[in-house]
Amino acid sequence: MDLDVLISEVGPRDGLQSVEATMPTARKLAWIDALAAAGLREIEVGSYVPAKRLPQMADVSQVVRHALGKPGLEVMALVPNRRGAEAALADGVHALTLPVSASAAHSLANVRKTPGQMVAEVREVVALRNERAPRARVETGISTAFGCTLQGAVPEDDVVRLAAALAEAGADSIGLSDTTGMANPAQVRRLFERVRAEIGQRTGAAHMHNTRGLGLANCLAAWDVGVRTFDSSQGGLGGCPYAPGASGNVVTEDLVFMFEAMGVRTGVDLERLFAARAVLQAGLPGEPVYGMTPEAGLPKGFVAAGGDRPAGAFARAPRQP
Amino acid sequence: MDLDVLISEVGPRDGLQSVEATMPTARKLAWIDALAAAGLREIEVGSYVPAKRLPQMADVSQVVRHALGKPGLEVMALVPNRRGAEAALADGVHALTLPVSASAAHSLANVRKTPGQMVAEVREVVALRNERAPRARVETGISTAFGCTLQGAVPEDDVVRLAAALAEAGADSIGLSDTTGMANPAQVRRLFERVRAEIGQRTGAAHMHNTRGLGLANCLAAWDVGVRTFDSSQGGLGGCPYAPGASGNVVTEDLVFMFEAMGVRTGVDLERLFAARAVLQAGLPGEPVYGMTPEAGLPKGFVAAGGDRPAGAFARAPRQP
Repeated sequence: MDLDVLISEVGPRDGLQSVEATMPTARKLAWIDALAAAGLREIEVGSYVPAKRLPQMADVSQVVRHALGKPGLEVMALVPNRRGAEAALADGVHALTLPVSASAAHSLANVRKTPGQMVAEVREVVALRNERAPRARVETGISTAFGCTLQGAVPEDDVVRLAAALAEAGADSIGLSDTTGMANPAQVRRLFERVRAEIGQRTGAAHMHNTRGLGLANCLAAWDVGVRTFDSSQGGLGGCPYAPGASGNVVTEDLVFMFEAMGVRTGVDLERLFAARAVLQAGLPGEPVYGMTPEAGLPKGFVAAGGDRPAGAFARAPRQP
Repeated sequence: MDLDVLISEVGPRDGLQSVEATMPTARKLAWIDALAAAGLREIEVGSYVPAKRLPQMADVSQVVRHALGKPGLEVMALVPNRRGAEAALADGVHALTLPVSASAAHSLANVRKTPGQMVAEVREVVALRNERAPRARVETGISTAFGCTLQGAVPEDDVVRLAAALAEAGADSIGLSDTTGMANPAQVRRLFERVRAEIGQRTGAAHMHNTRGLGLANCLAAWDVGVRTFDSSQGGLGGCPYAPGASGNVVTEDLVFMFEAMGVRTGVDLERLFAARAVLQAGLPGEPVYGMTPEAGLPKGFVAAGGDRPAGAFARAPRQP
C-alpha cells in the first residue's frame, strides 16, 4: 500500500531513554515486533551512547540487529557523534540521526558541543557513511528549533542558517524538533516554509511534543505546509532529560488516528497499534503512558484511510516529497 | 483591545451540568467573576432546565443576574425549549443558545424531540425573542455534527440542510458541535466551508471536544477556514451526559495559549486564567480537571499576542466576521 505520510516511531529510543526504568531486551524486541506488525515502517530503535551515560540503551546493538530482520522496516538509530556512527554503521542501520541543537545552551547540555561543532561532527559522519555504508542515510533533527527552556526564544534566522549549514555538510534530511514543547502552529508553518525555501527537498521530519497540548495541532500545521514525515512515540513516552520541563512526545496512537480519520494513509492499523501499546505497558510496568484515542476507542463506524483511494504523493527517498 | 477571536467559555454550563457534584452558588459566582477578570468576554453561565432533571442548574436565574452585573460580559444561557427561553429572557440574558442535534437518536435522547421539532422550537423562540427582547440573540449549535455515538456517521448533507433550516427559522448564529469527539481536521474544514456557503455570516462557533486528543487540531482547522468563535471549557470540564462515551470539552487554557502564541488576540490573560482555574478547583473539590498549559506553565520568554498589532478582523455581531 502506498503511504501519504510516514510515521517514524521514536518510542524505543526517545521514550525508553527518558524513563528511569530499563526495559529488558526481550521486552524491547517484543515491542518492536508489535510496532512493526502494526504497520510502522520506520522505527528509531536506540541510541549509540555510552552505557554508563544511558544504561537503558546498553543493548542497542542487539536491538538493531533484531530490527534489521523485520522485512520492510527502516531501522534508525540516534548517534551523538562519529564514534556512535561507527558502531551504528558496523551494525548495519539503515539510517542514522544526529541531534543538532539550535540553542547553544541546550547543545552544550545535551551533547557537550556547540551547534557549530555539531555541524562539523555531521560532516565527519557523512564522510564516514560515504566510505563505509553509502546506502545508509544521515538525518539530523534541529532540536529546540521552536524555543529553548534554557535560552528562551530561539531566533528563526539561527534555525534557517543551521539547516543550511547541515545541508551543506551533507545531511540527507534536516528535521525540526520542538524539544521543549514551545511551538505553535503559526510558527511551525512559518519555520518549515522558511527552511524548505532554503534547503528544499532535504527538509525532514516534524518532531513535536505535547507539553502544552498543541502536539497534534502543530503536526497538522506542518502537514499543511507539506511535511510528510512525523516523529511520534507510542504512549507519548519520552521527552528530553537535558531540557528541563520538556515532556511528552506526540502520541503515535492519536497522531495515526488523526491522519487516518482525515483520509491520510499512514499504513498503520490502529487496532494492532493498540495491541503494541499493551506490549509496551507490559515491558514498563507502572510507567504512565498517554494518549486519548486508546482510552476512548475508535469512533462508531470509523473507517481508516483505505487502500482504494488514488496513490498519494508520498515518496520514500528523499523523505520529503 | 480588539479581539481576533472570541473564546466563549462554556464551563459554568456545559462543565457543571456534566459533573455529579453541584457547585454551590457562591462558588459559581466567584468562578464567573474570576473568568471575567481573566478577560473572557462571553460565558455560557447555565441552563434553563427543570431542576429535578439537572439539579446542578437549579440556581441559574441567580447566576445569570449576577453575571449581568459584569461590565462588558456577554451572558449566554442554554435553553432546550420555549419555556426555558421565556425564563431566560425574563432574566435578561444577552443570548440564548439551543442545542439542535443532527442525529435523530441523539436529539431524542438529549431533548426528547426530533431535529425537525427542534427547528420548530427555534422558530418559536425567535418569535418570542422578537416580541419580548429584540436585542437578545438566538444562537444554535448543531450537536453531533461530526458523528454520533448512537447513530454512527452523520451525513454532511443532513448537517448542511439543518443549518439552512435553522437560518430560515431565524437563528442568528448556527455553530457546529463535535459533541462526541469524532471530528477530524479535514472534516472540520469541509463542513464549516459547506455550511458557510449555505448560510454565510450566520455560521457560528466551533464547539470541539478532546475525546481523542484532536480538540486543538480541530480548532486550528476551523480557524483556518474563517471560524472566529470557539467554545471551550476551563479545565476541560464537561461532555454530554446523553452521548455515551463523549468526554472532555476543549480546554480553555490550552486553546487560549495556542491562539495567543500564534499572535491571535483572545483578550484573555493567561496568568489570570490560571487563577480562575484555582477558583474552579476550590468549588469542585476532587473533580479531575484537564489541561497541559497550566501544568507546564508558560514557556520561558513567552509573549502573548500584544495590543500593539494592527486591529484584527474580529467583529462582535454577527459572531462570524
